[in-house]
Amino acid sequence: MTGMIALLTDFGLRDSYVGVMKGVMLNSYPEVSFIDISHSIEPFNIISASYLLYSAWDYFPKGTVFLSVVDPGVGTERNILLYLYNNNILITPDNGTISVLKRMHPASRTLIVSNQTIEKKRIGMSDTFHGRDIFAPLAADIAKNGLASIQAREEEGVVLKKVWPEIDKEKAKVSGSFIHIDHFGNCVSSIHASDLAGIQINAPASIHIGETRIHGVKRCFSDAAPGEFLVYEGSSGFLEVAVREGNAAENLHITDETRICIQYQC
Amino acid sequence: MTGMIALLTDFGLRDSYVGVMKGVMLNSYPEVSFIDISHSIEPFNIISASYLLYSAWDYFPKGTVFLSVVDPGVGTERNILLYLYNNNILITPDNGTISVLKRMHPASRTLIVSNQTIEKKRIGMSDTFHGRDIFAPLAADIAKNGLASIQAREEEGVVLKKVWPEIDKEKAKVSGSFIHIDHFGNCVSSIHASDLAGIQINAPASIHIGETRIHGVKRCFSDAAPGEFLVYEGSSGFLEVAVREGNAAENLHITDETRICIQYQC
Amino acid sequence: MTGMIALLTDFGLRDSYVGVMKGVMLNSYPEVSFIDISHSIEPFNIISASYLLYSAWDYFPKGTVFLSVVDPGVGTERNILLYLYNNNILITPDNGTISVLKRMHPASRTLIVSNQTIEKKRIGMSDTFHGRDIFAPLAADIAKNGLASIQAREEEGVVLKKVWPEIDKEKAKVSGSFIHIDHFGNCVSSIHASDLAGIQINAPASIHIGETRIHGVKRCFSDAAPGEFLVYEGSSGFLEVAVREGNAAENLHITDETRICIQYQC
Repeated sequence: MTGMIALLTDFGLRDSYVGVMKGVMLNSYPEVSFIDISHSIEPFNIISASYLLYSAWDYFPKGTVFLSVVDPGVGTERNILLYLYNNNILITPDNGTISVLKRMHPASRTLIVSNQTIEKKRIGMSDTFHGRDIFAPLAADIAKNGLASIQAREEEGVVLKKVWPEIDKEKAKVSGSFIHIDHFGNCVSSIHASDLAGIQINAPASIHIGETRIHGVKRCFSDAAPGEFLVYEGSSGFLEVAVREGNAAENLHITDETRICIQYQC
Repeated sequence: MTGMIALLTDFGLRDSYVGVMKGVMLNSYPEVSFIDISHSIEPFNIISASYLLYSAWDYFPKGTVFLSVVDPGVGTERNILLYLYNNNILITPDNGTISVLKRMHPASRTLIVSNQTIEKKRIGMSDTFHGRDIFAPLAADIAKNGLASIQAREEEGVVLKKVWPEIDKEKAKVSGSFIHIDHFGNCVSSIHASDLAGIQINAPASIHIGETRIHGVKRCFSDAAPGEFLVYEGSSGFLEVAVREGNAAENLHITDETRICIQYQC
Repeated sequence: MTGMIALLTDFGLRDSYVGVMKGVMLNSYPEVSFIDISHSIEPFNIISASYLLYSAWDYFPKGTVFLSVVDPGVGTERNILLYLYNNNILITPDNGTISVLKRMHPASRTLIVSNQTIEKKRIGMSDTFHGRDIFAPLAADIAKNGLASIQAREEEGVVLKKVWPEIDKEKAKVSGSFIHIDHFGNCVSSIHASDLAGIQINAPASIHIGETRIHGVKRCFSDAAPGEFLVYEGSSGFLEVAVREGNAAENLHITDETRICIQYQC
């Protein structure tokens, strides 16, 4: 199989931005193929991007190059980061987009691309569309040639603390925030099933979400009545909040600021 | 040509769901290619999915595998259905998604996939994302190997009566419902041009749509004045309601419940 | 590399329209590949289509066939146009979709496809979905065989005057309109950076946008404070209006009718 690039941006679908990036990459690497992860995440929502990349990572063929351009700092001095794990590579502005990947896969490598490489690969001088002028040629080059011609230094990338929950094993309490709201209004929390290991001894759980209180973690939607709220382990292993056949984000007014807290009665 | 999978879901475009399904399929069948039919239909709208699959069926290359995941019953005991017609195959939850295809192509085969096959092909244990864990690996396997390794029994699938109109030839009257509303607000009815055969002897037609009355079936948009309502034979052969350079669904308040009735003056 | 077709329509993503067009093209040219430019532009917005095609043109591999179906006149007598420039070809209804391309690349060829060719290539008789029945088979044929079997006569296509600004070099004044609003609310004007050549001698510029007044052209978003309006040379060379980390179209109430005027103090 030839190179594959998986794309994530907040560019939306009404412009030519994504198509133009693909055109640029095909120009220098005609055999490349693309899979779109999403281009419709909330503009500038780095945490959401970070979650989606994690949710996709292990399901793509080994050797996939992920290119994420959620880049509120375009035109400023922010770095360009490479994240390497399990034979896949992510290229992204260094702004926290690796947060969930880094949390779940800490044994990964991160590299900052040198300015010399960036200037050498860039194809245009726009300061508002680095996706086209810098990221696309860089991703095509890496998908085609690996890291052979990329100058980069090992360095910790930016991570956002929000994706880590607070765990108090003694009090049997875990609290977190929400990191993604999906198309159906299901809300993905920062609490991963693995965060409950050693706490959750089949004890009943009392779950607070903002002002709402729910009892117990369920298996799936059909374990709740239509219209009922439920908390369950989502398909990426994080706890999610949904309302069966409804929209949890709207009904519970869940925002970036809302907290979720699980308390086990030991 | 290698295998092609045409995809229809209600997953929307802001998440990684569709991209992840493609990643899974590429993992087991690297040469497969994808065409997206739609991922933006109204959540859980099985009738709409059913119409879109029919509208696409005959326009794809023979051998196409259609994968439809509009699945309000995910995690429950609903079956997985194969629909075979004219050298194409559809894989779908058995929830009525085949209704329009079955109505228009009754000489088709339907098979229920055995639980043994499902358990053998599945790649993960999520009960909320069967698209990734069950449908994607199953579709990739069928696109690659045909039905060779699939255990399945012949059985009628679920069909929804809503897609059949009521035809009264003596009274020269046909009535139906709406099965799809498109991007422009054009409304596709369950009345197919072929339902009017033997009734419509160039007689003038009086058409009721909810409280609105329109006269005659027109050829295309340009036969109506801007802002005028019209009924015409749509591109899939079903009668549609539109307003020229406007949105018929909004202007006529057409919903799932609205009826359309055609009465010929013989 | 085999043939590539870049697609632009206003068909939206909730229907099967785009997928069906791809199915049709794959049927007659199985090796073709597709890149979507956009299917989510405002319905019938020919000017916006015209801008997006220009913004994409030079970034795609040479030999790309662009197919644009923004076609309010479907079913009427409008012609089908071929626009040839720099080894790429555009196929479009002759309704002004070439306006920005023609303005920026006047040394291009335009051809009207003969009715005989249209009738020979068409695959169905729908008068509401020429995208499927006429444009898709035509584009696949051209991507596969070039113009060998296409009868066409050289003719000027329709252009819309709106994409040309008014330039008054003596008064050091340039005024124009808005030709595209992007996903972020950034507004692309009809004033190209090259329109300011010979006027702009590092003189301070006073810019009127409707009732709003802004001083000076900036380099990029980060040259403005959060919430501040700015005018800058966009990634396609046209002047754009944005508000940093905000939505300029909404905040400045920019519509199709709004004017932008740049006055240099010489």
